[in-house]
Amino acid sequence: MNRKAVLNVLGRILLYFSLVFIIPVAVAFYYEESTKPFLISMAASFFLGFLFYFVSRKAEIEIRYKEGYAIVGLGWLLVSMIGAVPYLFVGLDYFDAFFEAMSGFTTTGATVFDSVEDLPKSILIWRSLTQWLGGMGIIVLFVAILPSLAKSGYALLQAEVPGIKLTRLKPRLRDTAITLYLIYLFFTLLEAAILKFLGVSLFDAINHAFTTLSTGGFSTHTESIAYYNNPAIEATIFVFMIIGGTNFALFYYIFNRNFKILEDAEFKAYILILLTASAILTVINFEELNLQALRYSFFQAASVMTTTGYTTADFDQWNDAAKILLLMLMFVGGSSGSTGGGIKVIRIYLLSTYSLLQIMKSAEPRTVRVVKYGEEIVEKEAFSAITSFFSLYIMIFAISSFLISLFGYDLLTSISAVAACINNVGPGMGLVGASESYSALHDLAKLILSIDMWVGRLEVFTVLALFIPSFWREKW
Amino acid sequence: MNRKAVLNVLGRILLYFSLVFIIPVAVAFYYEESTKPFLISMAASFFLGFLFYFVSRKAEIEIRYKEGYAIVGLGWLLVSMIGAVPYLFVGLDYFDAFFEAMSGFTTTGATVFDSVEDLPKSILIWRSLTQWLGGMGIIVLFVAILPSLAKSGYALLQAEVPGIKLTRLKPRLRDTAITLYLIYLFFTLLEAAILKFLGVSLFDAINHAFTTLSTGGFSTHTESIAYYNNPAIEATIFVFMIIGGTNFALFYYIFNRNFKILEDAEFKAYILILLTASAILTVINFEELNLQALRYSFFQAASVMTTTGYTTADFDQWNDAAKILLLMLMFVGGSSGSTGGGIKVIRIYLLSTYSLLQIMKSAEPRTVRVVKYGEEIVEKEAFSAITSFFSLYIMIFAISSFLISLFGYDLLTSISAVAACINNVGPGMGLVGASESYSALHDLAKLILSIDMWVGRLEVFTVLALFIPSFWREKW
Repeated sequence: MNRKAVLNVLGRILLYFSLVFIIPVAVAFYYEESTKPFLISMAASFFLGFLFYFVSRKAEIEIRYKEGYAIVGLGWLLVSMIGAVPYLFVGLDYFDAFFEAMSGFTTTGATVFDSVEDLPKSILIWRSLTQWLGGMGIIVLFVAILPSLAKSGYALLQAEVPGIKLTRLKPRLRDTAITLYLIYLFFTLLEAAILKFLGVSLFDAINHAFTTLSTGGFSTHTESIAYYNNPAIEATIFVFMIIGGTNFALFYYIFNRNFKILEDAEFKAYILILLTASAILTVINFEELNLQALRYSFFQAASVMTTTGYTTADFDQWNDAAKILLLMLMFVGGSSGSTGGGIKVIRIYLLSTYSLLQIMKSAEPRTVRVVKYGEEIVEKEAFSAITSFFSLYIMIFAISSFLISLFGYDLLTSISAVAACINNVGPGMGLVGASESYSALHDLAKLILSIDMWVGRLEVFTVLALFIPSFWREKW
Repeated sequence: MNRKAVLNVLGRILLYFSLVFIIPVAVAFYYEESTKPFLISMAASFFLGFLFYFVSRKAEIEIRYKEGYAIVGLGWLLVSMIGAVPYLFVGLDYFDAFFEAMSGFTTTGATVFDSVEDLPKSILIWRSLTQWLGGMGIIVLFVAILPSLAKSGYALLQAEVPGIKLTRLKPRLRDTAITLYLIYLFFTLLEAAILKFLGVSLFDAINHAFTTLSTGGFSTHTESIAYYNNPAIEATIFVFMIIGGTNFALFYYIFNRNFKILEDAEFKAYILILLTASAILTVINFEELNLQALRYSFFQAASVMTTTGYTTADFDQWNDAAKILLLMLMFVGGSSGSTGGGIKVIRIYLLSTYSLLQIMKSAEPRTVRVVKYGEEIVEKEAFSAITSFFSLYIMIFAISSFLISLFGYDLLTSISAVAACINNVGPGMGLVGASESYSALHDLAKLILSIDMWVGRLEVFTVLALFIPSFWREKW
């Protein structure tokens, strides 16, 4: 581990991160709110970044995978720790503020604010902005902007981008990062424009566009999307949530008139699972909601599966079959290369295919078969990573649920809180249900859930590696 | 697939299986109860077996792995279908009877009888006997007894014995099967003798010895072991449950004065998990139960983890943290080569080790490391099988829980019923709690749970293979 290089890059990331606070400062200035929360955070980020950079300025920058893991893992932690500072000025203690910031950057969308309407607009835009940045990735952004990082950026991107493998859209990594961000920006602006056209205020439109495309789910209204009670707005957000949960590389191909998307196995599985689950949910809810079942079930299934977490209905009031289905959808999650969380459709798809193959192999050891994805044969190493990811994910889920229950919470609250946080969904059930916030939980429970968000967003390996002592040794 | 060979062996198994009914017939005769239920079942088994055998008498018997899967998978189904017949004579419908029989052979111990005290003694001994036979394995027994099966027995045993790999204790397979059954018999007789010595009636002592060593958990009392309210009896059963959850090969070595057991990684992990979980459970229950917490927590943790399912306390009354811990223990299960169900300690151990290695590999692709078990390097193929097993197991658990909840049962009932059945534990929580039975469930829910027991006992692959169409083709 080249620790100095890690410190050096972390320092530069924090220096650039301080610039991000210009946006909430501008908003605070415009709405005549206090700019102090953001100026102090900006100063903190700048100072810490400078310190890190100064200490390691002579380091030789060589970023291999392990340094990439350390930078991304610690980078997200630091960014959340600093991003939490503004919330201290609206009355949160540090546990709550850190939870809210981690929930933002990881695009979880779980909140400790019982009511968001009375928050300053600059705080609201900060919440939304953290999700927008976290959705496509903070490091991806810096790789896109900064030529100096792009050089050693692959290891960084690989550690940050969700899914099994980063699709290189352009020969140069920096161009890939720029392309991804441009597509992201395009859809964000498009959604904001449509929402504005449908009568949403400009401020709300921008905030919701930020938190839809990032599959984040923070809203400027305590009631979330139910506040509008408007089918057209719901339909718009429904479509953009699904876009947020789609592999962005596929849109790049579409813009180049290449309709690969229609043959992509993950995209097909993603849409198929979503539609099937929505249809089943509609049937389950039909007795209770009649014709409205269709509207609420499709929206809620998409919101949960893409891990956005917006609500138009209090699904905590639905029956237990609906709840179990939603819990399962949380784990499926979005597509690889999307902003969605969860296990990811491609992993579920490959795990199923692979496991069936293993049954055949065990029954007929001479079987020579391979799993294909599209036209490519999936390598054994990829399966080792996927199956290990899945095992660790489930074990962390189980252990975290148990730890949360130790604070005295019931089964549904404990498992749904962890499921909603590790999968970066947001609202859970029971005490942390769709119409509730996480404010009532014990501080340590919030800390465990914050860690789950971090582990989930960086897809387990990056974070767990930090806890293996030999990871930090000079020589592995 | 050599379908005729499958039919031939199934026929012979059913012919020999008909002899098993002699035991309940004798008991019925002794207690002057009706022998009819068992004579009819015996005739059914004999007739069906003869039919199968007659049709395929000219088949060339070559048992490869796939034929082994088909014989074991279908064999267990047939044996449960015939083993259900006696229950029809005490008022059960066929869904209930099949559930009870499958619960017996798979050593699950879930029951549809609300009260067992008023059942004929011959029915009680049949329930216990099904567990005893299922514990070490019906096919293992026939391989032990019948030289003609032993020839092609490895594929059969491999498909039936829990865990990753059958330990060959003796050069000849038949001798291995005999050795395992002798150890099993020895402990069964020992436990029965001790229980008798402690004042338990001979009938009860034999029944409980049958269902302890098999980690089955059927009791001759509705209250289960709580009926005796006797710490010495509980301690005895506690010890023999732990023996039942231990790899029987280790006892063979002990009897040969080879104390490998002390160095066996799985055994150490098994005891460590059990003690740690028991201690945590004691702390969780301390507020409620005070000093009794120790007694009930240790017994219940061992009962659940070894997948026996006896109860001395209604753990459904415990708090949700205790329930989640017990649910987790259900999934851990016993050791490989034991009579316990669940995922098995060795798989959990290897999954954890392997997953940590994958983290290191992904962070440092050049890492060349292997996972060792004892002094042997664990092959990649073994990991593929373990990780696939785990993935399928979790997916089947999730989907089954959802299906059960569709009948209108609450979350706790749905997930605990499936967990208790797929892991072959027995009592669940909520509507199927420790002091309740499964009788109230919908017939189709019982069918799903019966399938879960079957899938769990035969460790997923054997059963799922039967549902792959190409499995049945002449050429794979």
